[in-house]
Amino acid sequence: MRIRNIKNAKEIVESSDIVIKNPTNYKNRYNELFDNNNPINLEIGMGKGDFIIDMALKHPDINYIGLERYESILIRAIKKINELEIPNLKLICCDAKELNDIFGPEIDTIYLNFSDPWPKKRHEKRRLTSETFLPIYDKIFKGRKRIIQKTDNIELFGYSIVSLSKYGYTIEDVSLDLHSTDKENSLTEYEKKFSDKGYKINYLEALKK
Amino acid sequence: MRIRNIKNAKEIVESSDIVIKNPTNYKNRYNELFDNNNPINLEIGMGKGDFIIDMALKHPDINYIGLERYESILIRAIKKINELEIPNLKLICCDAKELNDIFGPEIDTIYLNFSDPWPKKRHEKRRLTSETFLPIYDKIFKGRKRIIQKTDNIELFGYSIVSLSKYGYTIEDVSLDLHSTDKENSLTEYEKKFSDKGYKINYLEALKK
Repeated sequence: MRIRNIKNAKEIVESSDIVIKNPTNYKNRYNELFDNNNPINLEIGMGKGDFIIDMALKHPDINYIGLERYESILIRAIKKINELEIPNLKLICCDAKELNDIFGPEIDTIYLNFSDPWPKKRHEKRRLTSETFLPIYDKIFKGRKRIIQKTDNIELFGYSIVSLSKYGYTIEDVSLDLHSTDKENSLTEYEKKFSDKGYKINYLEALKK
Repeated sequence: MRIRNIKNAKEIVESSDIVIKNPTNYKNRYNELFDNNNPINLEIGMGKGDFIIDMALKHPDINYIGLERYESILIRAIKKINELEIPNLKLICCDAKELNDIFGPEIDTIYLNFSDPWPKKRHEKRRLTSETFLPIYDKIFKGRKRIIQKTDNIELFGYSIVSLSKYGYTIEDVSLDLHSTDKENSLTEYEKKFSDKGYKINYLEALKK
């Protein structure tokens, strides 16, 4: 996605109550931040936030944290959340590579929605289901490891199945046309646009003990 | 597939040298039949034989056995093979449920091409990647277990990934559009027809130790 630079984005992010500043300070203590012992689910690359906002509203007994690298994108989510009251939702502006500095073993489920497919072989390591990231995720899961991915990119989807399977995950659920199933689904902004154009959405759920 | 009944199909099958009669007699002795110690690969549901004939011609150092339940379909393959000389190819007219009567642990790879998807949930057990069949396959593999599947049916494909993964297979390779890759591929007669119509072909390779 081309990112439009937005003036004052950094200031808006830093002054928002929804965004966790200095998240390394909360490592192993996110349940204190949410003031409950509910599971904590993470979306890596939350974009403008439609998915995680909808999930947080639908599931008040689960805490959600959205990660987004780009402040200019994050402020779009902040604006939406400011109009609502969602105590079980927080955001962090960071890169997925920093996950082990930010979280101890305290995450229940990781969502990867429409991640950058990095189609070139030489960029394989940047894909969020590559062997660069799977060991990073290992350390932040509280119990059994659970990753849920959605993508319209068939190359990334095939790659993820193989990468997760080889890393020891069991593929528990797969759909090659998610919207044709009756599975409950919170749409991302990207998903709305591309599904309307007739692109099929691929879905997987992977578990590791 | 609707099967046209062909007069004398049974007689043609029984008089063909390519078809193994009373295959239970050869259990644990197929290498003697081929008169070599090359690997033996099996296609379950070989239809009219285009895939297995092409594979056998391309790989003379591998033995191939094609299974087909219906004599009326099998005779179409027999006619093609009669026009060629393919010592590394044999056919068996039987149902996949009889596999353990026919083979000992002597198979290298199983090919499942465009198998019946049995879309209704109550017919799940009939799918060739269901838990009905995976234990049957376990007993006929010589060493590590290797299943290669192609299908245009996205429900069967998703089902197979999950079923194989839960059964302990690692998904080693996946493509959701096989013909867009540079992978070597022998086409089935069905695949030719449906790929020409723009249907995408799904491919997986699964391994179990």
